Amino acid sequence: MRTIVHNNVTVGENGHLFFAGMDTTELAEAYGTPVILIDEDRVRARIREYRDTLRACIGESSMPLFASKALSFKELYRIVASEGVGTDIVSPGELYTAVCAGFPMERAFFHGNNKTDADIAYAIQNGIGYFVVDNPEELDAIDTEAGRAGIRQKILLRITPGIDPHTHQKISTGGVDSKFGSAIETGLAERITRMALDKENIELCGFHCHIGSQIFEIEPFVLAADIMIGFLADMRDKLGFTASVLNLGGGIGVRYVESDPEISVTQNVKAICDHVRATCEKHGVTLPTVYMEPGRSIVADAGMTLYTVGSVKEIEGFKNYVSIDGGMTDNPRYTLYQSAYTVLLANRADEPADALYTVGGRCCESGDIIQENVSLPHPERGDLLAVLVTGAYNYSMASNYNRVTRPPVVLLRNGESRLAVRRERFEDLVACDI
Amino acid sequence: MRTIVHNNVTVGENGHLFFAGMDTTELAEAYGTPVILIDEDRVRARIREYRDTLRACIGESSMPLFASKALSFKELYRIVASEGVGTDIVSPGELYTAVCAGFPMERAFFHGNNKTDADIAYAIQNGIGYFVVDNPEELDAIDTEAGRAGIRQKILLRITPGIDPHTHQKISTGGVDSKFGSAIETGLAERITRMALDKENIELCGFHCHIGSQIFEIEPFVLAADIMIGFLADMRDKLGFTASVLNLGGGIGVRYVESDPEISVTQNVKAICDHVRATCEKHGVTLPTVYMEPGRSIVADAGMTLYTVGSVKEIEGFKNYVSIDGGMTDNPRYTLYQSAYTVLLANRADEPADALYTVGGRCCESGDIIQENVSLPHPERGDLLAVLVTGAYNYSMASNYNRVTRPPVVLLRNGESRLAVRRERFEDLVACDI
Repeated sequence: MRTIVHNNVTVGENGHLFFAGMDTTELAEAYGTPVILIDEDRVRARIREYRDTLRACIGESSMPLFASKALSFKELYRIVASEGVGTDIVSPGELYTAVCAGFPMERAFFHGNNKTDADIAYAIQNGIGYFVVDNPEELDAIDTEAGRAGIRQKILLRITPGIDPHTHQKISTGGVDSKFGSAIETGLAERITRMALDKENIELCGFHCHIGSQIFEIEPFVLAADIMIGFLADMRDKLGFTASVLNLGGGIGVRYVESDPEISVTQNVKAICDHVRATCEKHGVTLPTVYMEPGRSIVADAGMTLYTVGSVKEIEGFKNYVSIDGGMTDNPRYTLYQSAYTVLLANRADEPADALYTVGGRCCESGDIIQENVSLPHPERGDLLAVLVTGAYNYSMASNYNRVTRPPVVLLRNGESRLAVRRERFEDLVACDI
Repeated sequence: MRTIVHNNVTVGENGHLFFAGMDTTELAEAYGTPVILIDEDRVRARIREYRDTLRACIGESSMPLFASKALSFKELYRIVASEGVGTDIVSPGELYTAVCAGFPMERAFFHGNNKTDADIAYAIQNGIGYFVVDNPEELDAIDTEAGRAGIRQKILLRITPGIDPHTHQKISTGGVDSKFGSAIETGLAERITRMALDKENIELCGFHCHIGSQIFEIEPFVLAADIMIGFLADMRDKLGFTASVLNLGGGIGVRYVESDPEISVTQNVKAICDHVRATCEKHGVTLPTVYMEPGRSIVADAGMTLYTVGSVKEIEGFKNYVSIDGGMTDNPRYTLYQSAYTVLLANRADEPADALYTVGGRCCESGDIIQENVSLPHPERGDLLAVLVTGAYNYSMASNYNRVTRPPVVLLRNGESRLAVRRERFEDLVACDI
């Protein structure tokens, strides 16, 4: 069977696009458009790839922590919890959502470059497993709050290894010039480690790094592991501290379009883990528990967004525009980063393309574009348009710009669909208005 | 008294930043941070500048239509309504908000490049004054819905004059290569005019154009008026149609930083109106009612956002970062367009700057930057940071990325403050989650 970009995207004999084995035109009919579909089987399969590989290569306590910022709603935390892995959260809002879903908070890691005192107190009240501490002010604040709560709070320290994997500047975070973490190069990493070890109400468990997003090569991860394990050895030698946890962050690339390379999560994770194990041996460093923090690579290709076509504008000598009933409000990634997406006509997926079309959203904003110059069969008002690989950073970045309501999220599993997030209503838009 | 960028921003004798005559540290104390302040007196003054100048130069029926997309909540529609002017809305969500606020819908204009059939029916049910029709498919849909409702629906046609005023590409809309409107140059403008005149349930009242945003010169507006009035004369000659309405859109620039020019709305509007009058006379065209659609230039400098400083990171040999408790979630304009903003320490506004700082938000995203390299006195955790001129496209573009709650909007009038939009709560974040 013909697949498009990923093997959960196929064309049926009726010419319709199928996703996770289901006819997209029927799903659009049932849930309306725009709608975000999430292939739950794919989400679970990806989690297991990370989980089983980390367990096999490193040990039973190693696991992936789902990076909530990629996609966050209650049912997703239930899925992650049921697979026996952890989550990272970056705000009290994500934490609240996880708590509402009954997520086991001892497996939750609180990230972020700017946790407020209120955030810290709230997370401790809710039994957060670990803070990933970004900076000295935060370390002080956590120590104070933990003392107030009468507990010894487990933490990791976010370390900046000084690697720039040359992805888009806005999503590259491992270089020294970053708002995140404490750099090894400047000496701050060692200084904050000393500080953490001296804190009465803090239990330092290890270190975290994150070098960036959409990395298709193995080398940057290997390099980051080298630097981090070197740092572990250094802290052991200088401070007598043995880290029990090494969190290598996320960043494995995702295929958005046919020209992107195909990536095997299992092979990549195995290669990184093997390298970690060998490097620890080389330095005589006790093999720590290893966490990884995939977000995008777990949910991105589990997602697809369906839209209805409104106007089609063929401007002679210029461009063809096709307008859809969503846009930057549910997927701002082209506007923000000029991200590539694969776009198809879902109700006529078997027809040959006749021209190039720029897909514009419904916002009163010229920059509200989903993709430029995609090949489509001539679209008409009422056609169903599919954008592939929208599971990550689409729903989570959605806004109500132009007071557009946010779409529902529908989970697909074993050939059945169910609502995970309902469509916003107009009443929701004015919920805070006095 | 020393003012900063605009005359509603001053420094008090206590060294605190004052906005609309009120001490920002007291407002932050009362409402928490982040908080968006809106100087209601300024909003009303700007509306009156447009209103009174249009009335004086063109006639009593001429008026500004507030462009809701810049800032939309119930109380704002009440303010706009009480000043006796109209509004433009671009979605059923904005329409719903206006209806909830009791806005007189005969003064509401429904814009947008992709109105769905459901949107059109909903607007007609609610007695929308005018549709601004973008394209032929939409014209058909409105004719059908109006017929169903048994009414003759007033419309304007959105015409693309073919002007690119050389502002940022994402916010430039008047060129022929645009997802908006029907271009004169390609003949589509004439064709859609003929079509509209032939429709049984449509009353064509005139034309609309919008050439872009943040335009500091008068020439592009004058040129647009020339082209549009030329088109009016042409349609009169060819089709015997006399337009009673000419809507010139928005786009007058706003001063964000000291290096931007100072702009007089009154002088600009007067110059444009005088030119319209003279050009109509030249062509023997009956002077139509003139509408303008300011959004940004009514609310932008009426806004200020206050944040609390979290961490301060001085990375030797690189950059200094100061992190705040908001960011791209409440103001994505730097991330989207690299927009310039003026940033001050509000609780120590009288102290000299000591270095350059890059202001980062609280999102787990490297691109979450509010402004790079601004001069500030050395900030510390707990300091109050003010970003000026945030009234437009900040609250309206806000998201819950990272499940960050959206800030409240506080109106300032005659030295008193009141809540217009309350702060989002964690419960609001999961309102749609199953």
